[in-house]
Amino acid sequence: MLRNHKITICYDGTDYYGWQIQPQKRTIQGLLEQALYHFKSKRIPVIGAGRTDAGVHAAGQTAHFKADLSLPMDELLNAINGNLPPDIRVIKVESADKDFHSRKQARSKIYQYRIFNAPEITPFDIRYVLHHPSPLNLQKMKEAASLFIRKGDFTSFSSNQLRYPVKKIIRSEIKKKGKELIYTVEADGFLKYMVRAMVGALITVGREKMSPENIETLFKQKKRTPQIPTASAKGLCLIKVKY
Amino acid sequence: MLRNHKITICYDGTDYYGWQIQPQKRTIQGLLEQALYHFKSKRIPVIGAGRTDAGVHAAGQTAHFKADLSLPMDELLNAINGNLPPDIRVIKVESADKDFHSRKQARSKIYQYRIFNAPEITPFDIRYVLHHPSPLNLQKMKEAASLFIRKGDFTSFSSNQLRYPVKKIIRSEIKKKGKELIYTVEADGFLKYMVRAMVGALITVGREKMSPENIETLFKQKKRTPQIPTASAKGLCLIKVKY
Repeated sequence: MLRNHKITICYDGTDYYGWQIQPQKRTIQGLLEQALYHFKSKRIPVIGAGRTDAGVHAAGQTAHFKADLSLPMDELLNAINGNLPPDIRVIKVESADKDFHSRKQARSKIYQYRIFNAPEITPFDIRYVLHHPSPLNLQKMKEAASLFIRKGDFTSFSSNQLRYPVKKIIRSEIKKKGKELIYTVEADGFLKYMVRAMVGALITVGREKMSPENIETLFKQKKRTPQIPTASAKGLCLIKVKY
Repeated sequence: MLRNHKITICYDGTDYYGWQIQPQKRTIQGLLEQALYHFKSKRIPVIGAGRTDAGVHAAGQTAHFKADLSLPMDELLNAINGNLPPDIRVIKVESADKDFHSRKQARSKIYQYRIFNAPEITPFDIRYVLHHPSPLNLQKMKEAASLFIRKGDFTSFSSNQLRYPVKKIIRSEIKKKGKELIYTVEADGFLKYMVRAMVGALITVGREKMSPENIETLFKQKKRTPQIPTASAKGLCLIKVKY
């Protein structure tokens, strides 16, 4: 009998072409399906809550898969991890309702973006932060971040025109922690490159090349401005998917 | 005129054959000397406070070098880092007395060893901790750790017989922090593999394969017992060198 499984996954995205399976490329979904293949000698599709880009990390990505397996959940967790490289770890396997769908039923997702804002960065941080050595105006960045909290059309903060560009952001805040500025954002969903474009705008504000109020102008344009950079993937981490 | 420089260095030792320069091998000292070579088109010897083993990290290794350079210290720091890979970072360059010697004048060194003591480890920790999934008796490990505080012959905790096996340990303690057990040790010096052998003994105590008092017996043997493993290099980090 097919059993539905919800899994929670951590990964260091540095050496991956992102979540989504692609021919000839090392992807998280690809390696998870490879790991599950061994159980039944056939493909068991793994459906993720969202597609993280190449180089983006996850501390709490979720996914589901249906399979006719009889292993208890804890043994299954060990067995899957045994087939995975150390930079991908399944941290939880749960039995799920037969109708559970990791993407369709996700209520919100939380992402974090780490900006290391000091001249000298240690080697222990380089894989997980954007290094911005020169000063940033945190107060202005906080103001700008709060302007993202809305239900609205986020086309200006995505890579291209989309049919459904409306997203609802319920949390958007930036805090200083030691030498880092940590941006946390929660929404019902995200467009492609959306968090990285928003962080690009926040950094532009922090550099005082744009005023916080300009975020409003960007929203109204409903197209991507090349002046707003897409912040590097390595600072971004999918923290949690809420159901 | 030759100027003496004290430098403080961080490195992720994962991809290195340790501190000491070796032909055809990627070492920290080797890369630092390569980075300095460009300034004068000749070798500028870099002398470190201690030789970390292959795979061992440093948050605060120190070294010194003498060179006829006129760059201000902050520019020198940037110039050296510009010639180094991102997993080695010079975090401080200071002008030093002409007689300053990073090794001979070091009063003590502090090392930390991180043991990740939970079944599931995240990919973000794997490079910097020893993963020990099964339970460890922390109370017994604390007792054992305190027994290392002494001036004594540490031959039993080194890789081989040495002419000067006496070291003075002034701090040796283990603390729990989240899922990690962090062992901190400070001494006037360390023998080869000494911290890793001490951690091997602590883990043996934590696994209840040996009682804390047995540390005393090991000291008396004055030779290495194969029953005590050498803990993996990747959990070890040189935190600070005191002068």
